[in-house]
Amino acid sequence: MALISIIEDFHPMGDVRLLDRAAQLTPALLHTIREPVGGFQLKERYSSERSEIVLDEIPHLSMGKGENLCLDFGEHLVGYLTLEFSYSGSHPDAPAYLKLKFAETLEELSENAQDYAGWLSCSWIQEEYVHVDLVPTRLVLPRRYAFRYLKITMMDTSPKYKLIIKHAECRTETSADWRKVPPFRCEDPVLQRIHEVSLKTLANCMQEEFEDGPKRDRRLWMGDLRLQALTNSVSFRNYDLVKRCLYLFGGSRFPDGRVSANIFTKPTVEADDTFLFDYALMFVVALEEYLQETRDEEALDDLYDIAMQQVEYAIRQIGEDGKLNEQAVRDTFIDWSDELDKNACAMGVLIYALRYARRLARRKNDWSQSNWLLQQNGLLRRSALEQFWSDREQCFVSSGQISAASQVWMVLADVCTPEQALAAMRKARSLRSEPHMTTPYMHHYYVMALLRVGMKEEAEEHLKSYWASMLDAGADTFWECWDPEHPEASPYGGSIVNSCCHAWSCTPAYMIEKFLLPAEDESLSSDHPAK
Amino acid sequence: MALISIIEDFHPMGDVRLLDRAAQLTPALLHTIREPVGGFQLKERYSSERSEIVLDEIPHLSMGKGENLCLDFGEHLVGYLTLEFSYSGSHPDAPAYLKLKFAETLEELSENAQDYAGWLSCSWIQEEYVHVDLVPTRLVLPRRYAFRYLKITMMDTSPKYKLIIKHAECRTETSADWRKVPPFRCEDPVLQRIHEVSLKTLANCMQEEFEDGPKRDRRLWMGDLRLQALTNSVSFRNYDLVKRCLYLFGGSRFPDGRVSANIFTKPTVEADDTFLFDYALMFVVALEEYLQETRDEEALDDLYDIAMQQVEYAIRQIGEDGKLNEQAVRDTFIDWSDELDKNACAMGVLIYALRYARRLARRKNDWSQSNWLLQQNGLLRRSALEQFWSDREQCFVSSGQISAASQVWMVLADVCTPEQALAAMRKARSLRSEPHMTTPYMHHYYVMALLRVGMKEEAEEHLKSYWASMLDAGADTFWECWDPEHPEASPYGGSIVNSCCHAWSCTPAYMIEKFLLPAEDESLSSDHPAK
Repeated sequence: MALISIIEDFHPMGDVRLLDRAAQLTPALLHTIREPVGGFQLKERYSSERSEIVLDEIPHLSMGKGENLCLDFGEHLVGYLTLEFSYSGSHPDAPAYLKLKFAETLEELSENAQDYAGWLSCSWIQEEYVHVDLVPTRLVLPRRYAFRYLKITMMDTSPKYKLIIKHAECRTETSADWRKVPPFRCEDPVLQRIHEVSLKTLANCMQEEFEDGPKRDRRLWMGDLRLQALTNSVSFRNYDLVKRCLYLFGGSRFPDGRVSANIFTKPTVEADDTFLFDYALMFVVALEEYLQETRDEEALDDLYDIAMQQVEYAIRQIGEDGKLNEQAVRDTFIDWSDELDKNACAMGVLIYALRYARRLARRKNDWSQSNWLLQQNGLLRRSALEQFWSDREQCFVSSGQISAASQVWMVLADVCTPEQALAAMRKARSLRSEPHMTTPYMHHYYVMALLRVGMKEEAEEHLKSYWASMLDAGADTFWECWDPEHPEASPYGGSIVNSCCHAWSCTPAYMIEKFLLPAEDESLSSDHPAK
Repeated sequence: MALISIIEDFHPMGDVRLLDRAAQLTPALLHTIREPVGGFQLKERYSSERSEIVLDEIPHLSMGKGENLCLDFGEHLVGYLTLEFSYSGSHPDAPAYLKLKFAETLEELSENAQDYAGWLSCSWIQEEYVHVDLVPTRLVLPRRYAFRYLKITMMDTSPKYKLIIKHAECRTETSADWRKVPPFRCEDPVLQRIHEVSLKTLANCMQEEFEDGPKRDRRLWMGDLRLQALTNSVSFRNYDLVKRCLYLFGGSRFPDGRVSANIFTKPTVEADDTFLFDYALMFVVALEEYLQETRDEEALDDLYDIAMQQVEYAIRQIGEDGKLNEQAVRDTFIDWSDELDKNACAMGVLIYALRYARRLARRKNDWSQSNWLLQQNGLLRRSALEQFWSDREQCFVSSGQISAASQVWMVLADVCTPEQALAAMRKARSLRSEPHMTTPYMHHYYVMALLRVGMKEEAEEHLKSYWASMLDAGADTFWECWDPEHPEASPYGGSIVNSCCHAWSCTPAYMIEKFLLPAEDESLSSDHPAK
């Protein structure tokens, strides 16, 4: 995620006790050493035309001004690079000046940073210019990178010597412990591979927090966290990390108590001045799901009031006409799409979250709150049906627009009859015009909605076709944005800042294990609490 | 100095005992903290048009994409930069990406590194691109820089925040101890200022070795060392550093025993594969001058044979015709000038060095060597006079060319009568055509030759006009290259790699104290050992 919201003089409230608890839960990071598995040289400076190099030849390859060497580490890595240099020719009489470009994909490797003119900071581009004063030497770069490919370009050595890359290695970093992942085998090789890549994606986003992407923005976003926590529950089972993140969101919030869309944790913990209506409600959902897994009474006691605050704030945004106000809808993310009308979606997320809120209230034995939530749920479901259901179209229509997203969130909110829901999802499947779904975040909820109306085959088909199309396009980890019909698209005005290991795309592993494998149909009901 | 010589499979000989002694003599480095004394912003990216900024406002100045801040530290510094950053606006949601440009002069500050197409490595350009991942923070740059000015350009922050430079400081580094410098006062303010700047130049080149320039090449060159040692003798009196450098030259040499033109000291001590005929002979001169100051028997014992080797090698380059062979002349530096015919100069340096060699032999009570050197001196002086003196021109002519350099070195070699020497130096002063003298290294010997023939007024006049013209052009320390008639000139094809604090230009302090101040005329005789 990356959004630009600016609030002047924003001073988030801090809860020292919650933040101390979050600090105690900081995970140890695990490390491995990874070395390149292949090498090549790009023939033109920013082309993809390349000549392969035998790996064993690299420690004997002398590189002078303008030459490049690309190392392929064989898989997406998050960690710290070490390079060992020696030289050929005379004793180095000048520093070596290198450009290092880290790339998650081959496309990124051949992009020219100078061409980037998007609205996100170019500081996210993983490039460094480095002077090496003494050779031979061992250079440990201080910053963490997310990459599979590394391009080393000699800006200059000197006429007297050439540089040799004797050794390269990456010290990877993650809080995901692969030893805790239950074995998974499925007969469908595509699903098997999607499952693997999902977990790899999640693992590389699991650091001291659940990051949205290890390349960018490298921090905790609420909507992403909810999906990461789901996949974590079928894999790394690092519930302390989920708890830590919930406490971080609880511990630094908007002055009026709202949960921020994202949290900075360094140099100190601080809520961002970005509020997203749907993300704040996902705090309620994620807390309830965490408690389902852990029955952690401490977390329930500490975070219950905060969860209820989110729901109550959201309900206050409903006018007397039963509609969400414009600001709430504007504050709703759902998907990267300027065209999408989000009225139905925002209402859908609210009603969806109410279900989880009511379960929290029941866990807490807060019966009056539970009853109030049940009542609100009824009111809002009726209002939503009235506002958005079209008998003529046999689907949900939001401000005149028929979108997949509107169908998805109305269905997940459970506002209509099973027949209406089925019709809505059939409509969603048939849509070819804009607005397209652009993010794996949206596609996750689309698959979940198909599953919810019983369209399991279609759900599996969509999961396979959408996520496998990323694999076909070269993904080692799943991406932040992917519209198979517009592979070059970036919500940021330049794909060089796109994140190609992005947490919100990790959920296929969860959906496969929970809903698509034959023996486990009944687990679908875990998302059907109202039934 | 910077020269390109490449010898394939060069393996210098190493003398572990001499190198161990050199290591023991490594000086402690002294440090001070320096802060900016002024600030400004350059209006265009590579222009010199600027708007001043009040110093106190800098810690409140918010800088966004494309903006720059230039800090003026008020004097030339050698050391390590620390920057402290804070921000304005929202919590930083992306790294800050900065370009830092360090410049010894204002001209360097406004040059564009992209325009540089010279033959020296562009890695010498003092520019860094830096990502600052967390703000607020304190950034200590790991590399040493030589600069007075620092330009900080915001490559990007993000739309959400701007960066503030809260504090900047430089931790300077030198082995020159100013407390050891005798007080110096002279009535002529120009000489006074030249003296000051000379010592500042030397101090900033005094690190663990006498460096030729702290920006570039940052290492020990023999010709430069000889001049640094002279100025050191009237100022910082760090004789251990001179000794260390002589031992470094002695400790790593060409396989046949020749002293290299320069020595690398890191990662390990190693002679460069560059031989300069005149520089190797300066080892003899510098050793003798060191012994004059210190009467250090250990150094005499350890380095005498090496000094004699240099002389003997040089004499072997004389053919039966009494002329130096072409290779020796090609290996002779003298000055940065492609036009200069160096036959007379090379012969001059050899005869000059013989005088010092003979003094060494007498110190060592090596009378047969002393006699042999006296005999060689007589032969070579006669040969030089025959080859180069022109009665018609009343000056020295080298392969048909009349240059100041030829007069200077024939005069310093003392090959002719005082009348001839005076005529030669009058001719040198009258020359207006090419080849010009281009370096302070050459100008030093020019002034010394004027002094030698008794043209003290002219010597002082030239010293003042040449070195003061650098001051007029903005020098805080004296430069590597300076031809007042061609201020933009660079021997490297681009002035951005020129060094503007260069040791071989530090000698005015020595010449003023030794020869130009009224009471000390007799000390001139120290350069007249043969008389």
